[in-house]
Amino acid sequence: MNEHINFDFGRTNRTGIPEVIYAEGKEEPIVLKLLEDFALNTEHPIMFTRLSPSVFRRLSPEFQSKYSFDALAKTAYSNQIPKKVNGRVAIVSAGTSDGFVTWEAKRTLDYLNVKSEVFEDCGVSGLWRLQEKLSQINSFDIIITVAGMEAALVSVLAGLTSKPIIGVPTSIGYGVCKGGQTALNSMLACCAPGVAAVNIDNGFGAACMAYKTLLSCKGSTK
Amino acid sequence: MNEHINFDFGRTNRTGIPEVIYAEGKEEPIVLKLLEDFALNTEHPIMFTRLSPSVFRRLSPEFQSKYSFDALAKTAYSNQIPKKVNGRVAIVSAGTSDGFVTWEAKRTLDYLNVKSEVFEDCGVSGLWRLQEKLSQINSFDIIITVAGMEAALVSVLAGLTSKPIIGVPTSIGYGVCKGGQTALNSMLACCAPGVAAVNIDNGFGAACMAYKTLLSCKGSTK
Amino acid sequence: MNEHINFDFGRTNRTGIPEVIYAEGKEEPIVLKLLEDFALNTEHPIMFTRLSPSVFRRLSPEFQSKYSFDALAKTAYSNQIPKKVNGRVAIVSAGTSDGFVTWEAKRTLDYLNVKSEVFEDCGVSGLWRLQEKLSQINSFDIIITVAGMEAALVSVLAGLTSKPIIGVPTSIGYGVCKGGQTALNSMLACCAPGVAAVNIDNGFGAACMAYKTLLSCKGSTK
Amino acid sequence: MNEHINFDFGRTNRTGIPEVIYAEGKEEPIVLKLLEDFALNTEHPIMFTRLSPSVFRRLSPEFQSKYSFDALAKTAYSNQIPKKVNGRVAIVSAGTSDGFVTWEAKRTLDYLNVKSEVFEDCGVSGLWRLQEKLSQINSFDIIITVAGMEAALVSVLAGLTSKPIIGVPTSIGYGVCKGGQTALNSMLACCAPGVAAVNIDNGFGAACMAYKTLLSCKGSTK
Amino acid sequence: MNEHINFDFGRTNRTGIPEVIYAEGKEEPIVLKLLEDFALNTEHPIMFTRLSPSVFRRLSPEFQSKYSFDALAKTAYSNQIPKKVNGRVAIVSAGTSDGFVTWEAKRTLDYLNVKSEVFEDCGVSGLWRLQEKLSQINSFDIIITVAGMEAALVSVLAGLTSKPIIGVPTSIGYGVCKGGQTALNSMLACCAPGVAAVNIDNGFGAACMAYKTLLSCKGSTK
Amino acid sequence: MNEHINFDFGRTNRTGIPEVIYAEGKEEPIVLKLLEDFALNTEHPIMFTRLSPSVFRRLSPEFQSKYSFDALAKTAYSNQIPKKVNGRVAIVSAGTSDGFVTWEAKRTLDYLNVKSEVFEDCGVSGLWRLQEKLSQINSFDIIITVAGMEAALVSVLAGLTSKPIIGVPTSIGYGVCKGGQTALNSMLACCAPGVAAVNIDNGFGAACMAYKTLLSCKGSTK
Amino acid sequence: MNEHINFDFGRTNRTGIPEVIYAEGKEEPIVLKLLEDFALNTEHPIMFTRLSPSVFRRLSPEFQSKYSFDALAKTAYSNQIPKKVNGRVAIVSAGTSDGFVTWEAKRTLDYLNVKSEVFEDCGVSGLWRLQEKLSQINSFDIIITVAGMEAALVSVLAGLTSKPIIGVPTSIGYGVCKGGQTALNSMLACCAPGVAAVNIDNGFGAACMAYKTLLSCKGSTK
Amino acid sequence: MNEHINFDFGRTNRTGIPEVIYAEGKEEPIVLKLLEDFALNTEHPIMFTRLSPSVFRRLSPEFQSKYSFDALAKTAYSNQIPKKVNGRVAIVSAGTSDGFVTWEAKRTLDYLNVKSEVFEDCGVSGLWRLQEKLSQINSFDIIITVAGMEAALVSVLAGLTSKPIIGVPTSIGYGVCKGGQTALNSMLACCAPGVAAVNIDNGFGAACMAYKTLLSCKGSTK
Repeated sequence: MNEHINFDFGRTNRTGIPEVIYAEGKEEPIVLKLLEDFALNTEHPIMFTRLSPSVFRRLSPEFQSKYSFDALAKTAYSNQIPKKVNGRVAIVSAGTSDGFVTWEAKRTLDYLNVKSEVFEDCGVSGLWRLQEKLSQINSFDIIITVAGMEAALVSVLAGLTSKPIIGVPTSIGYGVCKGGQTALNSMLACCAPGVAAVNIDNGFGAACMAYKTLLSCKGSTK
Repeated sequence: MNEHINFDFGRTNRTGIPEVIYAEGKEEPIVLKLLEDFALNTEHPIMFTRLSPSVFRRLSPEFQSKYSFDALAKTAYSNQIPKKVNGRVAIVSAGTSDGFVTWEAKRTLDYLNVKSEVFEDCGVSGLWRLQEKLSQINSFDIIITVAGMEAALVSVLAGLTSKPIIGVPTSIGYGVCKGGQTALNSMLACCAPGVAAVNIDNGFGAACMAYKTLLSCKGSTK
Repeated sequence: MNEHINFDFGRTNRTGIPEVIYAEGKEEPIVLKLLEDFALNTEHPIMFTRLSPSVFRRLSPEFQSKYSFDALAKTAYSNQIPKKVNGRVAIVSAGTSDGFVTWEAKRTLDYLNVKSEVFEDCGVSGLWRLQEKLSQINSFDIIITVAGMEAALVSVLAGLTSKPIIGVPTSIGYGVCKGGQTALNSMLACCAPGVAAVNIDNGFGAACMAYKTLLSCKGSTK
Repeated sequence: MNEHINFDFGRTNRTGIPEVIYAEGKEEPIVLKLLEDFALNTEHPIMFTRLSPSVFRRLSPEFQSKYSFDALAKTAYSNQIPKKVNGRVAIVSAGTSDGFVTWEAKRTLDYLNVKSEVFEDCGVSGLWRLQEKLSQINSFDIIITVAGMEAALVSVLAGLTSKPIIGVPTSIGYGVCKGGQTALNSMLACCAPGVAAVNIDNGFGAACMAYKTLLSCKGSTK
Repeated sequence: MNEHINFDFGRTNRTGIPEVIYAEGKEEPIVLKLLEDFALNTEHPIMFTRLSPSVFRRLSPEFQSKYSFDALAKTAYSNQIPKKVNGRVAIVSAGTSDGFVTWEAKRTLDYLNVKSEVFEDCGVSGLWRLQEKLSQINSFDIIITVAGMEAALVSVLAGLTSKPIIGVPTSIGYGVCKGGQTALNSMLACCAPGVAAVNIDNGFGAACMAYKTLLSCKGSTK
Repeated sequence: MNEHINFDFGRTNRTGIPEVIYAEGKEEPIVLKLLEDFALNTEHPIMFTRLSPSVFRRLSPEFQSKYSFDALAKTAYSNQIPKKVNGRVAIVSAGTSDGFVTWEAKRTLDYLNVKSEVFEDCGVSGLWRLQEKLSQINSFDIIITVAGMEAALVSVLAGLTSKPIIGVPTSIGYGVCKGGQTALNSMLACCAPGVAAVNIDNGFGAACMAYKTLLSCKGSTK
Repeated sequence: MNEHINFDFGRTNRTGIPEVIYAEGKEEPIVLKLLEDFALNTEHPIMFTRLSPSVFRRLSPEFQSKYSFDALAKTAYSNQIPKKVNGRVAIVSAGTSDGFVTWEAKRTLDYLNVKSEVFEDCGVSGLWRLQEKLSQINSFDIIITVAGMEAALVSVLAGLTSKPIIGVPTSIGYGVCKGGQTALNSMLACCAPGVAAVNIDNGFGAACMAYKTLLSCKGSTK
Repeated sequence: MNEHINFDFGRTNRTGIPEVIYAEGKEEPIVLKLLEDFALNTEHPIMFTRLSPSVFRRLSPEFQSKYSFDALAKTAYSNQIPKKVNGRVAIVSAGTSDGFVTWEAKRTLDYLNVKSEVFEDCGVSGLWRLQEKLSQINSFDIIITVAGMEAALVSVLAGLTSKPIIGVPTSIGYGVCKGGQTALNSMLACCAPGVAAVNIDNGFGAACMAYKTLLSCKGSTK
């Protein structure tokens, strides 16, 4: 085999984030080998993202049982990080089609031992859906907002809350949605301040941003 | 001089829209000549759009007095079309920076003898501004919505009204706003149905769309 | 299952448009479940758009029989809205390749109880095809124009009619057509006024715009 | 001075096109020096394109008198090529705003000793303007079509003529016109065959294409 | 079936180009029906372009035998147009990978009864390949040049010939080639005059441009 | 005057952010009027952003004296918000050319009463510059990173810190930098997690994101 | 068969690079025929790039045995060029996902008889990985750097070495990575001098650039 | 003043390249201060790039006399680096309009004490211009090629030489040239191997790449 990976188990100390493996684009035998190796490694927590269900299911049942796997979020993790991060994150999404991103964020926060709650289907085409959950959402420390198409949810929410918003544009939509580019631009052009965005469909990245923020500002407890 | 213009005074009969001259990009002496010629022509209504105030002011006072001119909207017209179109148009804008487009739409509707009213500064970063005017806006037949940046106003309004919305994206904003392209894409990607858009900064075009719609659906009276 | 949908049956009162479900991108089991649930719900009219024939055919014959389904337009609806909207819509398309959009618009208008007629294959490469139908087209209240490639049909028609045009660019074409972006830009850049556009391939959106316009300007009858 | 130009007086033999100097972007003293040098050179015909009137007027009257200069077309040439090319070219433009390109094409054909005629202001927003000149236009061997915005004129004309069309998109228009890119894409996406395009605003290039075509297919006479 | 096509058999008289059917994007049963209908129609010449071999082979042998079919060029035609066009066309391509476009052009010219010859694999990475065929190429009336990637072949050839060049960019290449957009832009930006371009991969369009040019400038014979 | 602005003094309660006026694109007389009005208003804190020094200097000295103005950051504010936000922000910039953005962020944090410190000229072309300040930077709660060109500073810093990073791409650079789009894309594509970005040159937005985060996670003191 | 290829065995003398066949996009029977022909030709070294393993495996075992084939790098070569080039190349990659490009470069250098070594997984999210190999990397004459996403590795390395860097952007990444365009732009916008880039995923091109450089600057030995 | 610059005089040891100051975008007083400071510093060689002649001329004559300044190349340097780099660089440009880039490369090499020669106006529209200088160009170790528009010069040269080519696209051209993007893409898509490119108009970067290459591969002498 022509390759070798430099694992970075010191990363947790340096950046606060444990090793995570992005499975997409890696050849299937390599991913399976990694899944097996880490299943036997009980010392380090590990998470796989963008892990296709069809690949995961090729793993033997014993190995599968070592992981918490979610087919919609395409994530598998062996065990959570030991320390519990203070603070709570609301994940607000525009529609159920955005679910693959919404739940990647949720699952990543679970793995990172951050308390969070999901509020799905709050898109502004029916404003009442957002408004009836607003006071609840406002009780969280950080809001992750997941939206595709024109992502107007972010602008509206930013004008209604004093909480920071991490926007995750999704690739949901067609034509001028341009694979999420319009949602991303809308979030960045948002006229209400207090919004920052991550890459398209990057629920994992939004969760890490929320985690690092809470770790830095609110600390953790063993 | 190397050029000649084919005026199209039969256009009103054919398309319902009288002759309009787009002044931008035309050489100044030609525009001045046209302004003078039409000032003397009392038979046909005429409107100039994108007419720079500095050019208009180079006209002699007698000629200036023949026109209704607005420096913000950059429009001049000699007299309105004789028939009165039935129905009314609300023009809702996100911010005062969008004024040059908002008032181009308003002035065009005035010229075309369509009743309209402007509701400025209703951007969704302060949702209450839109909500307190909503029932009033809902009393109009057609809504023109003018917004730059991420244009979330259009999405929110479309979810709150049963009236058709003609969206006008503006070039207001910087960076990812891309001269209005993001606002345009947001309007077209809008998840709430009942929206159609015109070119960036094209307040004139939105007014014509509203005018043709009312003329066709509600008729006119002399 | 990680998700729940907030149905919005109050939408008809608020926006005039009943619940519509966009099936593309939703996982197949979810779509089938929704199709079955709504087949049993006789109270609310429902339409599914972008519904793949292969998914629809996986439904049991009893459930299939509850819907009017069209494979080209990829739409299924259970029953039409009860009120009849006044006014009529012409749907003019450039070519038969645009059919999947043309008929999505037609079917949506059927569902919304708006009278409409389709004029296919009127592209300007053979101008006589448009001209021989022009007086007929001009008898409608609103014109929806469906065209891909360079979409010149919209410009020509806008110069020949006093009716408002809702343009629907299609993704038909290759190379510089850029998946419909050139057709869209052409419609928005159209030098003849009285045109507004919706997203690429969005026949549904054009129909909703026409419906809201007629509902607002011409009213409805039970 | 850090530069030297390799003049290519053998080019006429090789490619049929005499030396032409593109003045834009060249520093003013260099352009003036070239204008003076060639004014004294009576042997070789020379043309300057994109030559700013303000630069040309800085030339002394004696030197100016050696050139035929046109301020709109921004071209100056000393004398025409000696041979007369057979065949005739129609130059059809959409609007007078396109004049700077239209007349660059016309002037280049004059310089190259090709007979041509200009038909301005034939945009399809008023289809009758094109139709009343159609039989005249059809009597030419090649048609150059100059149009900005959505350039629908090219598509319509291509469906009405058996003559080849060389399309010149112009940068006229704003917003989605994108400096001529939309006009260019429209021409290339044109559904009627028999059209080829040159670069945006490149009236000179279209004229050269017509010239080379006539020279090759119809020959020349001294 | 929801559709009907307006055939345009008068097109030959009007534009000189007989009916051609673009098969891509049309549903398979429709294409097969058209192939069968036209196989029985001996009066009108017909050509199908972008016709997938797998579709053509689903036709019964009797029907197949009525057509001249080429799998690389994806074209089928029943019989050529009756008149013989004067003049000859050289088709020069950069590489064999461009063959699907090169031979679409060749086959279209065959159908249109224009004499032509193909010069393949003349890309400038080996300049001698072009140079050794140059005098031969220069003996033709019009040159169609087919090239992908950076399409430098067009620039070099334009500087070496007095013949007009119709450039066809191809989608060959990866990364910055952007599906042919770079080749197209290179052709249009070509510093040597006498080049005009058609859409990416549009060998058919280039052939029609050449055909209309020869028909107009050199005429035809029965 | 054709316009009126809806001031939103309730915004502080709702979103935590006091009224801020974006001066760019507003006509000069309007900006001057606003500056004078707010200079007399001692009740509400106000900040003007993108305020051109040449406009500010047209204000009378008495009015000027009411503001803290910074010409590089183009910001003026009358007085700070009364409450003191807990926590501290590091602002790390790649080069001094990014100063207009770096100091817009710094000044906004000053206005919002957040403690912050600027670390300029830490671009990774000289990695030691970043490394020698790293432990200092790591002592802050949140890091704002300002960088143009390829913005590699963000990636490197994200791999070296456990603090959350708010990235601000700048329009510094030419050619492929595309006015900041490349810096923005680099930040969003950053392979190290814990980064979120705001619009190009939006130092103000980054500061507001940091402010809302600290307000939510660490609270404030009168 | 409609095609013929002009082999260019004189290329080695002219450009120093032997014949290489780019297999992607060529029809499978043609590629197999070429593989068989060259297997029998022992005189000329030949390399195939972008050769799909599934195609190669369709070759008979005897023919397969004539080639050195690598499935990840998708390259096959028959024998190396006879002369040995002086100097050594380091190939540094950001991650193992970039392996298909990294090893295309490595394999091309092997074929061209240039000594090289691969340093994988040195992305800057863990800076120590690069730093611990830096002195080793600095002992090579030329550095090829392979990176996708935001490609910050190139900027960091360029600030730490006096060796020239040839950057190869890869298509690894999603969303704003835009198929490698962001990595490419980052490399070209790199603020540290001494970097030049090749096309996205073009490991072959980078190897040829390194080879030509060493051949020219350090020579070769039989 | 709100800023301070971290000078990096250790850079020469680390990267081989001495301090260079990019003047564009820096405020004039800062640039003048730096020019004065370095004029007095005789220890370190310094070069300013993108230094506007109008700024330089505002310097007092005494300070001006300390620099070698070139107005076309917009560069000033105080003294050359002490060591002499082995090897020679040919700088080949397509046209005199590219001179501002060509001479920036030449001047940078002069400053870095690398022997070089400029071959201007070798664009392929007149292939003989390149061919008559080819054997001379081939005698250099590295070729820098400067070209705008479609940059075909690079492709042609790469097929004719065994020397490595560093391509510098320029922003010369209009329309589809897109400010140099088409030239850049053409260079990167070049079908002949042995080419790598730098940013648009970056003559400085190309010179640094050549310098680092020669320093690494051929060494230097005091």
